[in-house]
Amino acid sequence: MSSTGSPPGDPLAIVCGAGNMPYRVADAVIGRGRRVVLFALAGWADPAQVKRYRHHWMRLGQLGRVRRVARQEGCRDIVLIGALTRPAITQLRFDLTTLMFLPRIIKAFAGGDDHLLTRVSRIIEDLGFRLLGAHEVAPDILVPAGQLGRHAPSARDHADVAVGRALLAAMGPFDIGQAVVVAGNRVIAVEAAEGTDRMLARIVQLRGDGALALPTKVGVLIKAPKPSQDRRFDLPSVGARTVEAAAAAGLAGIAVEARGVLTADLDEMVRAADGAGLFVVGIPADNVARGQP
Amino acid sequence: MSSTGSPPGDPLAIVCGAGNMPYRVADAVIGRGRRVVLFALAGWADPAQVKRYRHHWMRLGQLGRVRRVARQEGCRDIVLIGALTRPAITQLRFDLTTLMFLPRIIKAFAGGDDHLLTRVSRIIEDLGFRLLGAHEVAPDILVPAGQLGRHAPSARDHADVAVGRALLAAMGPFDIGQAVVVAGNRVIAVEAAEGTDRMLARIVQLRGDGALALPTKVGVLIKAPKPSQDRRFDLPSVGARTVEAAAAAGLAGIAVEARGVLTADLDEMVRAADGAGLFVVGIPADNVARGQP
Repeated sequence: MSSTGSPPGDPLAIVCGAGNMPYRVADAVIGRGRRVVLFALAGWADPAQVKRYRHHWMRLGQLGRVRRVARQEGCRDIVLIGALTRPAITQLRFDLTTLMFLPRIIKAFAGGDDHLLTRVSRIIEDLGFRLLGAHEVAPDILVPAGQLGRHAPSARDHADVAVGRALLAAMGPFDIGQAVVVAGNRVIAVEAAEGTDRMLARIVQLRGDGALALPTKVGVLIKAPKPSQDRRFDLPSVGARTVEAAAAAGLAGIAVEARGVLTADLDEMVRAADGAGLFVVGIPADNVARGQP
Repeated sequence: MSSTGSPPGDPLAIVCGAGNMPYRVADAVIGRGRRVVLFALAGWADPAQVKRYRHHWMRLGQLGRVRRVARQEGCRDIVLIGALTRPAITQLRFDLTTLMFLPRIIKAFAGGDDHLLTRVSRIIEDLGFRLLGAHEVAPDILVPAGQLGRHAPSARDHADVAVGRALLAAMGPFDIGQAVVVAGNRVIAVEAAEGTDRMLARIVQLRGDGALALPTKVGVLIKAPKPSQDRRFDLPSVGARTVEAAAAAGLAGIAVEARGVLTADLDEMVRAADGAGLFVVGIPADNVARGQP
């Protein structure tokens, strides 16, 4: 194995945040015959999973170390994957290379997620890497189109999906959440900084407190990438846990944009949905009206 | 006093939901020299406050009783005020008049809040009432324009307000929440079914869990009526409790649409804001860009 070979002969650098997704991406890439090197972010990546792969631990902000290790490993292509709680600027560990980029990094923090990610991606490319999306190196982890389990959405569910997709599209320019819950044409919850799991837990709580009088098996979780999103970063993801949370919230099902949402465990998710009586559908992006409800 | 005089000689019927607002409206109307009769909704209205006024207890859905009592009292004008958790259709108590309207009531429940309220208002008018808004009978409870306390928003706060107002405008057609939190140009929280207090409590929790790394005294709660809203219903409201919740969430201040948001306790709210170091501003609706951020 040469450390200077050109892609796809060179190993893929996978910068690992939290969650299982980095390892499902690694497995998928390995399954396609490419080597991987994990750049595990201390505080986010899971040590128990990281150790199963060739890896190096990093602290966020050690750009010089990333560049040095990547050169040693012969990596030119890089993927960033896994949840990364937006860090406070004080949580960064700066090395000399990072300090050179500091004015740009500070600027990157002065906006929404898309803004941050766009600036981070330019910095990575200026360091000499080619930034790829997880969906490019491991397309098998994208949720496909169509009905994915035993249960199908009703006409009312389809109407809820249309409302949710239109709302996500309307909110797209504002660089916020990628998920909403719509029940009987009514928007019940909108995700911003809290993430999908907490948003669904909120519905459980509202029901429990009697603040939301809604029959069960009504309502749909709708999830899609932002229209403006750079898909190399952090596409939204769903999994068996999402199904469990949606079931606990009393929803009828989950609709995601087909090939726009990642899943680390499609089979497990579909089994969970079948068991809980929920539908899961992947909806082609161009099949959905993006206008007003 | 005649029970058959024409407005404003006739007493104003105030249908009371939860919270303090019905009694502040009642006080303001009495202060303007008009009598009031409270139609207190059992389960929502506060008995301790209701008993200070001429009143009748009602159950939601007793339209025949509302009409009969209103005739006895000589009321033609009616105001609906106070929070009313969206009831499940099974929580309604139907009398004969209500049964006549049942098909329309069922239809009214099949949509968002605006939809529900529009249909309810038509039913009320068909019963022979004139439906007025709290802001029409008691304009002194509207938040006025301008800086309302000691503290002023910074340039960054103004930028956050602009983002929040534009987002509320974009979401307007979807008939959802009337409040968002924006911090450093980033949308942190969007209110849907949970209400403003719970949305602010969520920010406290996200900070506590380390899921939201944000300096304190950054971020603005922005609150405004929906663009499409029938202002006779349930304008958004703020008060001292909103200030306390915003302070607990570490925000810099509160911006509301001037004359578009109710407050039961303006002086108390401003004192709380001054004490907590928060700004409170009323922003004229036509001073705010309604485009994209």
